[in-house]
Amino acid sequence: MTVVRSTLPEEALGVTGTALQETLVDLLGLSLVGKQAHWNVVGPRFRSIHLQLDEVVATARDHSDTVAERAAALGVSPDGRPETIAATFALPGTKDGWLRDTEVVELMVSALGTAVGRLRERIEATEKADPVTQDLLITITAELEKQRWMFQAENHPRDGASS
Amino acid sequence: MTVVRSTLPEEALGVTGTALQETLVDLLGLSLVGKQAHWNVVGPRFRSIHLQLDEVVATARDHSDTVAERAAALGVSPDGRPETIAATFALPGTKDGWLRDTEVVELMVSALGTAVGRLRERIEATEKADPVTQDLLITITAELEKQRWMFQAENHPRDGASS
Amino acid sequence: MTVVRSTLPEEALGVTGTALQETLVDLLGLSLVGKQAHWNVVGPRFRSIHLQLDEVVATARDHSDTVAERAAALGVSPDGRPETIAATFALPGTKDGWLRDTEVVELMVSALGTAVGRLRERIEATEKADPVTQDLLITITAELEKQRWMFQAENHPRDGASS
Amino acid sequence: MTVVRSTLPEEALGVTGTALQETLVDLLGLSLVGKQAHWNVVGPRFRSIHLQLDEVVATARDHSDTVAERAAALGVSPDGRPETIAATFALPGTKDGWLRDTEVVELMVSALGTAVGRLRERIEATEKADPVTQDLLITITAELEKQRWMFQAENHPRDGASS
Amino acid sequence: MTVVRSTLPEEALGVTGTALQETLVDLLGLSLVGKQAHWNVVGPRFRSIHLQLDEVVATARDHSDTVAERAAALGVSPDGRPETIAATFALPGTKDGWLRDTEVVELMVSALGTAVGRLRERIEATEKADPVTQDLLITITAELEKQRWMFQAENHPRDGASS
Amino acid sequence: MTVVRSTLPEEALGVTGTALQETLVDLLGLSLVGKQAHWNVVGPRFRSIHLQLDEVVATARDHSDTVAERAAALGVSPDGRPETIAATFALPGTKDGWLRDTEVVELMVSALGTAVGRLRERIEATEKADPVTQDLLITITAELEKQRWMFQAENHPRDGASS
Amino acid sequence: MTVVRSTLPEEALGVTGTALQETLVDLLGLSLVGKQAHWNVVGPRFRSIHLQLDEVVATARDHSDTVAERAAALGVSPDGRPETIAATFALPGTKDGWLRDTEVVELMVSALGTAVGRLRERIEATEKADPVTQDLLITITAELEKQRWMFQAENHPRDGASS
Amino acid sequence: MTVVRSTLPEEALGVTGTALQETLVDLLGLSLVGKQAHWNVVGPRFRSIHLQLDEVVATARDHSDTVAERAAALGVSPDGRPETIAATFALPGTKDGWLRDTEVVELMVSALGTAVGRLRERIEATEKADPVTQDLLITITAELEKQRWMFQAENHPRDGASS
Amino acid sequence: MTVVRSTLPEEALGVTGTALQETLVDLLGLSLVGKQAHWNVVGPRFRSIHLQLDEVVATARDHSDTVAERAAALGVSPDGRPETIAATFALPGTKDGWLRDTEVVELMVSALGTAVGRLRERIEATEKADPVTQDLLITITAELEKQRWMFQAENHPRDGASS
Amino acid sequence: MTVVRSTLPEEALGVTGTALQETLVDLLGLSLVGKQAHWNVVGPRFRSIHLQLDEVVATARDHSDTVAERAAALGVSPDGRPETIAATFALPGTKDGWLRDTEVVELMVSALGTAVGRLRERIEATEKADPVTQDLLITITAELEKQRWMFQAENHPRDGASS
Amino acid sequence: MTVVRSTLPEEALGVTGTALQETLVDLLGLSLVGKQAHWNVVGPRFRSIHLQLDEVVATARDHSDTVAERAAALGVSPDGRPETIAATFALPGTKDGWLRDTEVVELMVSALGTAVGRLRERIEATEKADPVTQDLLITITAELEKQRWMFQAENHPRDGASS
Amino acid sequence: MTVVRSTLPEEALGVTGTALQETLVDLLGLSLVGKQAHWNVVGPRFRSIHLQLDEVVATARDHSDTVAERAAALGVSPDGRPETIAATFALPGTKDGWLRDTEVVELMVSALGTAVGRLRERIEATEKADPVTQDLLITITAELEKQRWMFQAENHPRDGASS
Repeated sequence: MTVVRSTLPEEALGVTGTALQETLVDLLGLSLVGKQAHWNVVGPRFRSIHLQLDEVVATARDHSDTVAERAAALGVSPDGRPETIAATFALPGTKDGWLRDTEVVELMVSALGTAVGRLRERIEATEKADPVTQDLLITITAELEKQRWMFQAENHPRDGASS
Repeated sequence: MTVVRSTLPEEALGVTGTALQETLVDLLGLSLVGKQAHWNVVGPRFRSIHLQLDEVVATARDHSDTVAERAAALGVSPDGRPETIAATFALPGTKDGWLRDTEVVELMVSALGTAVGRLRERIEATEKADPVTQDLLITITAELEKQRWMFQAENHPRDGASS
Repeated sequence: MTVVRSTLPEEALGVTGTALQETLVDLLGLSLVGKQAHWNVVGPRFRSIHLQLDEVVATARDHSDTVAERAAALGVSPDGRPETIAATFALPGTKDGWLRDTEVVELMVSALGTAVGRLRERIEATEKADPVTQDLLITITAELEKQRWMFQAENHPRDGASS
Repeated sequence: MTVVRSTLPEEALGVTGTALQETLVDLLGLSLVGKQAHWNVVGPRFRSIHLQLDEVVATARDHSDTVAERAAALGVSPDGRPETIAATFALPGTKDGWLRDTEVVELMVSALGTAVGRLRERIEATEKADPVTQDLLITITAELEKQRWMFQAENHPRDGASS
Repeated sequence: MTVVRSTLPEEALGVTGTALQETLVDLLGLSLVGKQAHWNVVGPRFRSIHLQLDEVVATARDHSDTVAERAAALGVSPDGRPETIAATFALPGTKDGWLRDTEVVELMVSALGTAVGRLRERIEATEKADPVTQDLLITITAELEKQRWMFQAENHPRDGASS
Repeated sequence: MTVVRSTLPEEALGVTGTALQETLVDLLGLSLVGKQAHWNVVGPRFRSIHLQLDEVVATARDHSDTVAERAAALGVSPDGRPETIAATFALPGTKDGWLRDTEVVELMVSALGTAVGRLRERIEATEKADPVTQDLLITITAELEKQRWMFQAENHPRDGASS
Repeated sequence: MTVVRSTLPEEALGVTGTALQETLVDLLGLSLVGKQAHWNVVGPRFRSIHLQLDEVVATARDHSDTVAERAAALGVSPDGRPETIAATFALPGTKDGWLRDTEVVELMVSALGTAVGRLRERIEATEKADPVTQDLLITITAELEKQRWMFQAENHPRDGASS
Repeated sequence: MTVVRSTLPEEALGVTGTALQETLVDLLGLSLVGKQAHWNVVGPRFRSIHLQLDEVVATARDHSDTVAERAAALGVSPDGRPETIAATFALPGTKDGWLRDTEVVELMVSALGTAVGRLRERIEATEKADPVTQDLLITITAELEKQRWMFQAENHPRDGASS
Repeated sequence: MTVVRSTLPEEALGVTGTALQETLVDLLGLSLVGKQAHWNVVGPRFRSIHLQLDEVVATARDHSDTVAERAAALGVSPDGRPETIAATFALPGTKDGWLRDTEVVELMVSALGTAVGRLRERIEATEKADPVTQDLLITITAELEKQRWMFQAENHPRDGASS
Repeated sequence: MTVVRSTLPEEALGVTGTALQETLVDLLGLSLVGKQAHWNVVGPRFRSIHLQLDEVVATARDHSDTVAERAAALGVSPDGRPETIAATFALPGTKDGWLRDTEVVELMVSALGTAVGRLRERIEATEKADPVTQDLLITITAELEKQRWMFQAENHPRDGASS
Repeated sequence: MTVVRSTLPEEALGVTGTALQETLVDLLGLSLVGKQAHWNVVGPRFRSIHLQLDEVVATARDHSDTVAERAAALGVSPDGRPETIAATFALPGTKDGWLRDTEVVELMVSALGTAVGRLRERIEATEKADPVTQDLLITITAELEKQRWMFQAENHPRDGASS
Repeated sequence: MTVVRSTLPEEALGVTGTALQETLVDLLGLSLVGKQAHWNVVGPRFRSIHLQLDEVVATARDHSDTVAERAAALGVSPDGRPETIAATFALPGTKDGWLRDTEVVELMVSALGTAVGRLRERIEATEKADPVTQDLLITITAELEKQRWMFQAENHPRDGASS
C-alpha cells in the first residue's frame, strides 16, 4: 500500500528512512529507560535526578514524535511498536529493581553518549541524501549532548575519591 | 535491596503490586500502540483520528506515571523497560505499515475494551487489599471507557450497512 | 439501534443507567433553576448570591456533561431534552418573577439538600453495579454538599430572630 | 413587586421585553438540544460534530445570559425555568436515543435557520423600541448564521448525489 | 491648528463631536465619583459594594478612552482636563466624607440612570450623523444599564419595608 | 452548485454580497500593502512605524476573515485569490523598493482614508438590506478610522514647516 | 447553636466528624512542622529538601481546607485553633533550632508514615458511615504516601552503609 | 550548632531576632485563627467574610514565610512549631464552634489592631538595629492596616444604631 | 461620623492625612492630564509618546488607589471628587486642543518634576509621623522620577542646538 | 537608494536574494489560496479541512514574514505587493466558487508538493552562497512537507478503490 | 553634556551617585561570576547549584537595571562597560576552568557576604542624601542576604566534621 | 581536571572550542555594551532605541548561555569572567557618559556588523569540525543580522541628505 509519495529519490530515501527509523527506536527506548530510572532511583540525590530524568524523557518523547512524522512525511511508515523497540533498541539498558543514584547517573551518561555517537554517523549519512532530515538530527544531537554533560558534571568524583 | 518500607501488610501488598505492575504495562503499551497509529493512520478521517489518538496517548502516559509512582510508594519497584513491555503486553497490538482509518478505530475499540475488562478485575481484587489503589484504578477505567465510547461512536456504520 | 456495546452485564447496566439518567436531569434542572435565580434575585445580598449561584450553575453544567458522557460510555443513550427535564425534574423549583435574596437562599438549601439525598441513594445502589459510576456520584455529592453548606451558613438568622 | 424601574417607555418596553424573552427560550432550548446531540451523535463524523456542537452550546449559553441580564436591566423579569422552556420552545427539537451524524447536521441546519428567521423579525421590531437591544440581537444573529453555514457546508452531498 | 482631517461633513461632525465630548465628561466624572465611593463606603455591605464599584470604574475608564480616541479619529480634540470635568460634569455627585452603603447604592442608581438617559438622546442624535459613533454609544449604554440594574436589584427593600 | 441557502431575499443578497466582496478585497489588499511597508520602511521613525504597520495588518487580516465568513454564511462564495485582489484592489498602492518613513505615513493615511470612504457608502447601502452585515461594516470602519487618526497625528508637520 | 443540618444520621455523623477533626489537626500540624523544617534545614542537600518540604506544606494546607469545609458541610464545626493543634497533634514533631538534612528526611518519613497509618484506620471507619468522606481520605492518603516514598528514596544509604 | 554567620553585630542581632520571632508567631497564629473563622462563620454576610478571611490568611502566610527566612538569613533559627505558637501567641483568639458574622468582624478588627500595635513598636526598635528588617515590618504593617480598615468599614452600624 | 479608629496619635495623623490627601490629588490630576496629552498629542513622535503617557497614567492611577486606601486605613476619608481635584490640583496643567509632541514632553518633565519636589517634602514630613506612609511616598517618588528621566532623555536637543 | 549594506559579497547576494524573493511569493500566494479554500470548502469533511487549512495559512504567513525580513537584513528589498504576487505566483491555484472537500485536498497536496520541489532547488543553490538563508529554507521545507503528508494521508482512497 | 537635571542638591547627588555606581558594578560583576560558576560547576550537587546560581544571576541582572536607571533618573550617567567592571569590581572572583560544587558554594557565600557588607555602608551613607535610593539599596540587601543564607545552609558540614 | 569527556576528536574539538569561546565573549560584551547604551541614550528617539536595545541584550544573553553550555557539553570549560571579557572583547565599544540617539544607532550597526563578520568565519571553520556547533552559530548570525538591519533602517538619512 503506497500512501505518501516521497519528495526524495529512491536511494536518498533509503538512507534517510533508515536513519529516521533507527533514531525513532533510540528515542522511544530512551524515554522508557529514562522513566524506569525516574521511578526506581534511590539515594541522597533522589530528587535532583528524579526531576532531571523527566527532562530527558520529555526531550526524547518530543523528538520521537518529530522523527516519526518526518518519516511519514517522506513516505516511510515509522515503526515504534513495543516489539520493535524491544528487538532493535541498541542503547545501554538497565536491570530491574531499585537503582542507586550513582548507578543512574552512569547509566544516563552511557546511554546518552551512545545515542550521540549513533546520531553523529547519521548526520554524516544524510548530508547529501536529505539536508532537511540532517538538520533535525543535528537539533536532537545538540539536546542529547547537553543532557549528557549535565549527568557527566553530576558524576564528577569528590576530592580524593576514586572514580 | 529493600528501599521503601510498605504501609501495607505482605499479602495485600502482593495483590496490589501485581495489579499495579500489570496496569503499568497495559498503559505503556497502549501509549506506544496509540502513537504508532497516530503516525500511520491514513484515510478520509485522518485528521480526526490523528488528533483523538494523541488524547489516548496523553491519558495513557499520565496514568502510567501515576501507577508506577503508586507502586514505588508502596515499596514495589515498577518495571516499565522495553523488554518487559514486549514480553508481557496483553492488549491487542497492530501490524506494521500504514493503517486505514477504519482499522485504527477498530483497533482502539478492541484495545481499550480489553484494557477496561482487565482493570475491572483489578478493581475487584484490590477492594480489600488497598482502597487507595482501587480508587486510582477506578479513575483510569472511567477515562479509558470514555475514550472507548468515542471510538465506538465513530465506528457506527452508515445507513443501510449491516452492524 | 445498538451503538455502544456496554462493558457491564445487563442487570448492572440497568441500575447504573437509571442512576445516571436521573442524575443528569437533576443537574440540568438545577443549572436552569440556578440561572433563573441568578437573574431574578433582588435584595441587599444581591451581589453575593448572584455570584454564588453562578458557581452552582458551573458545577451543575460540568457534572451534567460528565454524567451524560459516562452513560454514553456504558452504552446508555442519555436524555437531556427540554421536554424530558420538564417532565421528570424532581427537585424543588421556583415561581416566576423577581425573587427576594432570602427566598433564593432557602430555595437553594432545599434544592441542593434534595439532590444530595437522591444522590446518596444512588451511591448505595451503584456500589456493586458499577464502582466507576459510584465514584463519579460521590464526587458530585461532595460538591453539592459544599454548596449547600454555604447557603445554609448564609441563611443563619441574626441574633434574637426566630428561625 | 416592581423592582427595576425601566429606562424605556411602556410600549417600547412591551415590544422589547417580548423579543428578549422569546430569544432567551430559543437560546436555552438550543443549548439543551445541542448538548443532547453532542452526547448522542454516532457515525464516521462523530468527533468533528461532537466538537462543533460544543461551540454552538457555548455560544447559546453565553448569549442566553446576556439576553436575560438585558431583560433584567430593563425591568423585565426573565423566565428560563425548565417548564417555561418546555412549554414555549419553538425551534425544531430531536427524538430521543442515538442520532446518526447526518441527522444531527440536518437538525442543526434546521434549528439554526429557524432561530435566525425569528431573530430577524425581532431585529426589525426593536429598531425603534430599543436600539440597544436591537444591537444585541444583531450580534446573536451573526453568530448563529455563521454556525448555520458551517453545518450547511458540512451537509453538502458527495459527487453524483442529488442536492 | 487643524490636525486630523475628518471623514465626516461639517454638520454631522458638529453633532457627533458634541455627543462624544459630553459622553467623555460623563464617563470621566463617573470614574472619579465611583472611586470616591469605593474608598469611602462603610456599612455591612462594604465588601460587595467596594468590589462592584471597581467594575463601574473600570467600565467608565475603558469607555472614556474609546470615546476620546473616537473624537480624535474624527478630527475633534477631546477635552478631559480636571477643570473641564469640574465645570461640565452633569451627573449626580457626592458629598465628601464616609458614605453609608445604602447611600452609595442610591447614588449609583441615580448617576447611572442619568447617564443612560443622556446617552439615549445622543444615540438618537447621531443616528444619521455618524452610525459608527452611534454604535459606540449603544455599547456604552448597554453596559451602564447593566450596572444600574445590579445596583437597583441590590437596593430592593427587605420584607415589610415600603417600596 | 448551490451550497448555502441564504437567509436573505434575492435583492438584499445582491447588495450585501457586493458590499462584502468589495470589503474583502480592500482588506486583503491592505494587509499585503501594510506588510510591504512593514518590510521596506526606512528612516528615523523606522521602529515606531514598523510596529504600527503590524497592527494595521493584524486588523485587516482578522476582519478579512470575518467578512469572508459572513459572505459564506449568506450563501455568497467569497473570492480572495491573488488574481482577484490584483485585478480589483482599489485603494492606493505602493511602488517597489525601500520606502522613507514619511512616504509610508502618507501612504497609510491615504489608503485608510479611501477604505473608510468606501465603507461608509456600504454602511448606507446595507442598512435596509442586512443590518447584521451593516453592523460588521460599522465595526471595521471604527477600527480603520482609529488607525488613520494615528498616522495623521504622526504626520503633523514640525513647527514652521509647510504641510 | 445548630447551624448546618447534616445530611447524615446521628451515628454516622459522629464517626465521620471525628475522622475529619483528627485529620484536620494532622494536616495543620504537618504544615507547621513542614515549614519549620523548610526554614531550619542545613546541609549539602539543603536546596532539594527545602523545595520538597514546600510541596508537603502546600499539600497539607490544601487538604486541611478541604477537610475542614467537608466537616462544616456535614454540620460539624471544625477546630483548627493554635491551642487545639498544640493539644491534640499526634504526629512526630521536631526540636527547635537548625536541623541537619538527614534529620529532616527521617523526620518526614516518620511523620508522613504515622499520618498514613492513622488515615488508613479512618478510611475503614468511614466506609459505611460516609463514602463521600472516605473518598476524600483516600485521596489524601495517596498524596501523603507519595510524599513519604520520595523522602524514603532520598533516605537510602550509600553503598557500604548498613540499612 | 552555629550555621549561618550573621551580617549583624551581636546586639543588633538580638533586637532584630526577637522582633522577627515575635512577628512570626503573630502571623502564623493569625493565619490559623483566620482559617478557623473562614470555616465557622455563619450569618447573612457569610460569603463576603468567608472570602475576605482568605485574603487575610494568604497575607499572613506569605509574610510569615518572608519573616522566617529573614531570621534564618541573619543567622537566627526561626521557631514556628505548633507548641511555640500555642505558648506565645499574643493576639486575641476565638472560641470554638460556629461564629456569627458580626463576631468575626469584631474579632478581626481586634486581632489586626493588636498585631499592628505590636508591629509599630518593632518598627521603632529595629530602626537602628537593622533597617532591612525594619523595611519588611513596615510592609507587613501597611497590609495589615489595610485589612483592618476593611473589617472596620464592614463593621459600621446601620442608621439609628449607636456607635 | 467616626468610622475607622486610627492606629496613629492625633498629631501624627494630621500630618500624615494631609500628605496623603495632597498626594492623592497630585496623582489623580496627573492621570487626567496624562490622558489628555495621550489623546491630543500630534507630531512625528506621536506613537512613542502616546504609549509612554499610558504608562504614566497607569502608574498614577495605581498609586492614587493605594494612597487613598492608605488614608482610609488610617481613618482619614480621602477626597478625590472632580470638584476637589479642580480646586486643589497644584501641578502644571495643559491648554485645550491638540498638543505638539515637543510641548507634551516639556509638560510632562515639568509636571513630574513638580510632583517629585512636593513628594520629597512629604517624605521628610512623615518620617516621624508614620514611617509606613513615608515608605509608600518613597515608592511613588522613585517611579515618578524614573518617568521624568525618560521624558527628559527624550527631550534632549539635537546636535548643534544649545542645552 | 541603497539602504542596508549587505554582509554578503555581490554574487552570493544575487543568488540568495532571488531565492528569498521567490520563496516570499510562494508563501504569500499559498496563504491566500489556503484562505480561499478555508472559506469555500464544502462537503462531509468540511470542519477537519477548514481547520487544517488555517494551520497552513498560519505557517505560510509566519514564514513569509521571516523570509522577507531576512531579505531586508541582507540589503535586498522584498516585494510582496498584490500585483507582484499575481504576476509571479507559480504554484497551482484554484478556480472561484465553492470547492468540494476532495478537490481541496488534491489542491493542497499539489500546491505543497510544488512548493517543496522549488524549495529543495533553492536549498542547493544557497548552500555556498549563504548557509544562514539555507538553514531558513530547510526549516520551511520541513514544515511544508509535514503539511503535505497530512493532506496525502487524508487523501487515501477507501477500501476497494484503486491507489 | 548635561542631560537630566537632578532633583537632588549637589552634595547629596555626589554621595548617592557614588553609591549607585558602586552597586551597579557589584551587581554586574556578580551576574558574570554567577554565570561562570553556573557553567563550570561539577560534582554531585551539580544540578541544585546550577539552578540556584541562575536565581542569583536573575536577581543581580534585574537589580543592576534598576540601579542604573535610578542613577540616570538622578542625572548621573551609569557606567557598566566591560572595562569598567573589570577595573573596579571589588567582590571575590573565581579562577578559570571547572569548579567543584564545594568551591562554588564557598565562592558564593564569600561574594554575597562582601556585597552585603558594602551595601550596608551605602545604606547608611544615603540615609540623609536620598531616602529613595536608600530604600532601593535596602531591597537589594534583603535579597542578597537571603541568597547568602541559602548557600551557607548548603555549606553546613556533615556529621562528624568540625564547624 | 578533566570533567566532561568530549564526543569530538581532538582537532575538531580545538577548532570548535575556540569558535565557541570567542562567540561567548562577543555576546557577553555585546550584552554589556547594549545595556550601557540602553541606560545612557538621549535624544528624540530615546524610547524607541531604549526598547530596541533591550531586545539586543535579551538576544545576546540568551545565546551566550546556549554557547557556553554547548562548550561545556563538548568538554571545554567556557570563560565569561569580567577580566576575560575586558581583555578579549573585540567588537566596537563605547565611551562613557550620555550617548546621543544617532551615536547609539551607529554604534549598534557597527558592533553587530563586526559580530556578524566574525561569526561567518566561524561558520566556515566549524562546518567539518562540528556541524552541531555550526548550526548554533548560523542561528545566532540570523538573529544578529536582523537586529543590524533594524538599526540600519533606523539610520537612513532624511530627504536631501547624502546616502
